[in-house]
Amino acid sequence: MTIKVAVAGASGYAGGEILRLLLDHPRRRSGDLEIGALTAGANAGERVTSLHPNLLPLADRLLEETTPETLAGHDVVFLGLPHGQSAVIADALPPTTLVIDCGADFRLEDASAWTAYYGGDHAGTWPYGLPEIPGNRDVLRDAARIAVPGCYPTVSSLTLLPAVAAGIVEPRVTVVAVSGASGAGRSPKVDLLAAEVIGSARAYGVGGTHRHTPEISQVLSAAARTPVSVSFTPVLVPMARGILATCSAATTASVDEVRAVYEKAYADEPFVHVLPEGQLPTTGSVVGSNAVQIAVSVDDRAGTLVAVGAVDNLTKGTGGGAVQSMNLALGWDEIEGLSTVGVAP
Amino acid sequence: MTIKVAVAGASGYAGGEILRLLLDHPRRRSGDLEIGALTAGANAGERVTSLHPNLLPLADRLLEETTPETLAGHDVVFLGLPHGQSAVIADALPPTTLVIDCGADFRLEDASAWTAYYGGDHAGTWPYGLPEIPGNRDVLRDAARIAVPGCYPTVSSLTLLPAVAAGIVEPRVTVVAVSGASGAGRSPKVDLLAAEVIGSARAYGVGGTHRHTPEISQVLSAAARTPVSVSFTPVLVPMARGILATCSAATTASVDEVRAVYEKAYADEPFVHVLPEGQLPTTGSVVGSNAVQIAVSVDDRAGTLVAVGAVDNLTKGTGGGAVQSMNLALGWDEIEGLSTVGVAP
Amino acid sequence: MTIKVAVAGASGYAGGEILRLLLDHPRRRSGDLEIGALTAGANAGERVTSLHPNLLPLADRLLEETTPETLAGHDVVFLGLPHGQSAVIADALPPTTLVIDCGADFRLEDASAWTAYYGGDHAGTWPYGLPEIPGNRDVLRDAARIAVPGCYPTVSSLTLLPAVAAGIVEPRVTVVAVSGASGAGRSPKVDLLAAEVIGSARAYGVGGTHRHTPEISQVLSAAARTPVSVSFTPVLVPMARGILATCSAATTASVDEVRAVYEKAYADEPFVHVLPEGQLPTTGSVVGSNAVQIAVSVDDRAGTLVAVGAVDNLTKGTGGGAVQSMNLALGWDEIEGLSTVGVAP
Amino acid sequence: MTIKVAVAGASGYAGGEILRLLLDHPRRRSGDLEIGALTAGANAGERVTSLHPNLLPLADRLLEETTPETLAGHDVVFLGLPHGQSAVIADALPPTTLVIDCGADFRLEDASAWTAYYGGDHAGTWPYGLPEIPGNRDVLRDAARIAVPGCYPTVSSLTLLPAVAAGIVEPRVTVVAVSGASGAGRSPKVDLLAAEVIGSARAYGVGGTHRHTPEISQVLSAAARTPVSVSFTPVLVPMARGILATCSAATTASVDEVRAVYEKAYADEPFVHVLPEGQLPTTGSVVGSNAVQIAVSVDDRAGTLVAVGAVDNLTKGTGGGAVQSMNLALGWDEIEGLSTVGVAP
Repeated sequence: MTIKVAVAGASGYAGGEILRLLLDHPRRRSGDLEIGALTAGANAGERVTSLHPNLLPLADRLLEETTPETLAGHDVVFLGLPHGQSAVIADALPPTTLVIDCGADFRLEDASAWTAYYGGDHAGTWPYGLPEIPGNRDVLRDAARIAVPGCYPTVSSLTLLPAVAAGIVEPRVTVVAVSGASGAGRSPKVDLLAAEVIGSARAYGVGGTHRHTPEISQVLSAAARTPVSVSFTPVLVPMARGILATCSAATTASVDEVRAVYEKAYADEPFVHVLPEGQLPTTGSVVGSNAVQIAVSVDDRAGTLVAVGAVDNLTKGTGGGAVQSMNLALGWDEIEGLSTVGVAP
Repeated sequence: MTIKVAVAGASGYAGGEILRLLLDHPRRRSGDLEIGALTAGANAGERVTSLHPNLLPLADRLLEETTPETLAGHDVVFLGLPHGQSAVIADALPPTTLVIDCGADFRLEDASAWTAYYGGDHAGTWPYGLPEIPGNRDVLRDAARIAVPGCYPTVSSLTLLPAVAAGIVEPRVTVVAVSGASGAGRSPKVDLLAAEVIGSARAYGVGGTHRHTPEISQVLSAAARTPVSVSFTPVLVPMARGILATCSAATTASVDEVRAVYEKAYADEPFVHVLPEGQLPTTGSVVGSNAVQIAVSVDDRAGTLVAVGAVDNLTKGTGGGAVQSMNLALGWDEIEGLSTVGVAP
Repeated sequence: MTIKVAVAGASGYAGGEILRLLLDHPRRRSGDLEIGALTAGANAGERVTSLHPNLLPLADRLLEETTPETLAGHDVVFLGLPHGQSAVIADALPPTTLVIDCGADFRLEDASAWTAYYGGDHAGTWPYGLPEIPGNRDVLRDAARIAVPGCYPTVSSLTLLPAVAAGIVEPRVTVVAVSGASGAGRSPKVDLLAAEVIGSARAYGVGGTHRHTPEISQVLSAAARTPVSVSFTPVLVPMARGILATCSAATTASVDEVRAVYEKAYADEPFVHVLPEGQLPTTGSVVGSNAVQIAVSVDDRAGTLVAVGAVDNLTKGTGGGAVQSMNLALGWDEIEGLSTVGVAP
Repeated sequence: MTIKVAVAGASGYAGGEILRLLLDHPRRRSGDLEIGALTAGANAGERVTSLHPNLLPLADRLLEETTPETLAGHDVVFLGLPHGQSAVIADALPPTTLVIDCGADFRLEDASAWTAYYGGDHAGTWPYGLPEIPGNRDVLRDAARIAVPGCYPTVSSLTLLPAVAAGIVEPRVTVVAVSGASGAGRSPKVDLLAAEVIGSARAYGVGGTHRHTPEISQVLSAAARTPVSVSFTPVLVPMARGILATCSAATTASVDEVRAVYEKAYADEPFVHVLPEGQLPTTGSVVGSNAVQIAVSVDDRAGTLVAVGAVDNLTKGTGGGAVQSMNLALGWDEIEGLSTVGVAP
């Protein structure tokens, strides 16, 4: 049987990244996977490669309109749509279709948090596509609907999870995460112009207002079995891809204890690597890969755990995470089509 | 009387920045200031513009060797030397010569902190060249020896000082500061190569090991009149200049209270600007200028003050701060030759 | 008498650069120059510093609408408007007002070239604001209307002028010029987003279709007193500012002859520097300055003169060139408020 | 049979890129290919991932010394050594070992050109690893020694070959190629520091002195069956990877003729894509891929063919080209382990 895959919102960065990974997926090369409808909003009718000139094998493909009709008849549908648009599409697809939403609509469990941060009504909650959360992998294997985590929550959660779950830090964390510009999406805005971003760093969503804040808190609180307060500040820096999250929390543990906790937590994870002592993660080393690189340290003077994690926001942080979840839900090897080898330098 | 100025360590970035500012200083144009000896170590004998091709008016100047003899006979001597080399040079200069050290040798008051972070013996403590510390301006007006603050301490201290001094935050702060590559100096190292830095972000000195940590703590503790614990993590990002410091501390104050404290603290400061509500600092907007841009916010959910500050690490963070101190010590207007207008975009 | 200066189109990069230079212009500090109306189109009503956060001294200023009324009553009016909008404004201003147009409307002498490259009717020809063209400085001293050259023509013309004027190259030149993203202006477009530009180089306007082509040809043909064919290709590279133009033409001259021609041509020019043998220009060394750095070489095997020139596209290439012309037309020293010292690294 | 592959010079960028590609090569996953000795000079003894943190699957591997002994017993040996060091190693390996040299030692046919550009004696000439040269693919299928082309010659040659071979341009070409910093290698040099490169563009090797000049001329002259004069200027721009070559030559052909020539020449090439009218190559769209994107145009006014080509200098320009040649020489499908899908944005 050939799995037929559609991508809705194929004109954006999330859609483009999913297509990049699907094109080189061994199941496509072997004929088990076929790329079906590619849809968009305002860009419908355009050539795929006029928007994604890197996707040369799709040079003869055009974008269709995003409608239930164009997306019908597929086994897997990836959604890379603006917030609030996924529910309508998903409801129109059969419950047996594997729908993987890269948007935020179905990530949060708390409807009031949704309303506070996104406005409007909460659409619901789908299985959360972060297989590295203990117990979650089995949930995803049975899922027909999956909410891909946000890019910042992916790296922030994974960088803090072992410490929070083990109770070796106070349930009050500070995350400052620098991100490349692709995380802000592809809509043309003056403050995302190259001339504005190059040569400059700027924080945004300061003071806990970024929408990924409640998502990080949700994951960490579940792991801690107690509410975890999260102070989250994103910083835009002049690179295209990558997030480096510096995560701090008060601790009395030694660095050896911390390291032991992390190494145990991630010993069997194919994509999460706890770096050896003396090595620190760089976003450059995970570009295009699904790897998460984490370093742990303890500042004894300040009584603070400082853990630093790096991901590619578009790969593990979006499209790679989505493909990882697809692999699981289809019963394939979780790592197929995904690499831990980044394109560096 | 013409003030004759020498720059020791003129081949590095600090020296180059001081020269950039001196060349366009109005006192040089009016003849009150003259650029004298320019010295270096390994680069002695080379043309200044082969190292600093931006300093065209110095196209006919050669670098001399850094010795007490070449530096003798100047009214002002700037030192941009590797750590540990300033004391020998300074001791050989007359006590009436204004010596302004851009290195770390004379910044710390605590000899044990010096030894812990830098190794070796502490050379002593000079007046600290941050005029924005209350009371410090008068000290600098009378000084013949000045220790220019480190780049991270300049922006971290100024971003936290009002809150810490007013006692509206707990004396335990977290600073995550992204910096451009010029902050790492000009020695050729593989991990500072453009191919390594471009497209990548990486933390370093994680876990409180960066040498600027005790300096930040010293400034904040003095302001707080109680020890302030500092968790400091620097992050290298792909830009040449600029530091953006995201500074967090627990607070129960409202954002209005916080804003009032900051606006009062900096009301008369020529270089420090507390941005209006809704505006956040960008390092790009202070490039080449001596301005410090600060935004304050309070994350009510997390009970955290988040203040963000931006400086050009080479200007206000090094060379501009040095010239500002020189102006003060010479009895000139503090802002002469220094701009608050950045070269943006 | 205080000269009152208005900037129309103050929201864009050209307008912002002019303001950056005027703010630090010594004539403003001395009271001889005053910044009057600052106008914009869609951004009228906004704070200047919400668009140009680097222009801190203008923090209390709002943008007005661009109309003849708001611009009336000024001694100097800079225009940074979209192509085709300058004539209407200029016609409404008194002939004694010094109007300096940073747009293309009045640069070309050949109406048919205008129509071919810009479409519509040619508005006319104003004195061309490139004082370095022999004889042109005197024209500008008497001018009340000045057309500021395009950024690419500024550097391409200056890099080729001496050779072309001396007749030591064939009248057929190839210019490939890399430019930072600010040269494309501030309108939000997908292909100018940071995520698209960072990590990528791309040519555009390939095949002689870029609008600056006839302008370069006009300047060079006048100097050569014979038509000069120009193959011009611009390349967008990931930096904010700067143009590096690599200019080639067949020659039989030796490099010594070429060097002699260039050194003689620019011996008295305050902003154009012919670099010594062995040194090549970098755009980084002219950032924020009005300097033009040029290196000449001859490829004997290929029988080709290769001259390379660097400018900051926003300074000498636009705003600095405009201020230089203003200084001349007002009878001030041509270099006032302009530096040859770039902000590097 | 399992093919055992060694990489000499595994600490550099070429070696790292070859390893990146080998790690994800399907023949390694299937067990047909095994990564053997990884050797280095000064870095021998270090962990591979301390130099290439992106190569996580090699986290337990150490670098050995580059000697004939460590490289013995392999079926394939890639050489990524400084110029002049390949011959000694190659001579010590059996003639049946497939040796693929990423250095320049065996690229040139003309011993006098070697001496003029590299100095010293010419080591010899090996089959040239550019399968896209008509007829060359069969040579490579039988080869046991292969010289991988230089990065600039790869893209410059492919961008000009069809026109030169068809005789539709004059045999005198001008190439201006912008390159990312990885092309300059990994040795620490001040002028390659991030602070120097970011925010700046600079030409180097101006005047025909770059060592890739005779190599480009050799390829084009062979195709033209007449000497082709090459004026080549490389320009370093602030990106890590990628070359964009703007290639010009006088022509009387129409753009339709030119396009027909190129489309025919590359119709069956798996990695070379002639872009449709209206689309221009970007280096960003080929990052990490083996694709070559080419656009052709004719400037009718200037009578000039302008062809623009983009490659990733480390992939198709070095490591990918090397793996492509390995695939051919081993009798595998030429495209195995190589993608035409770039990592963009």
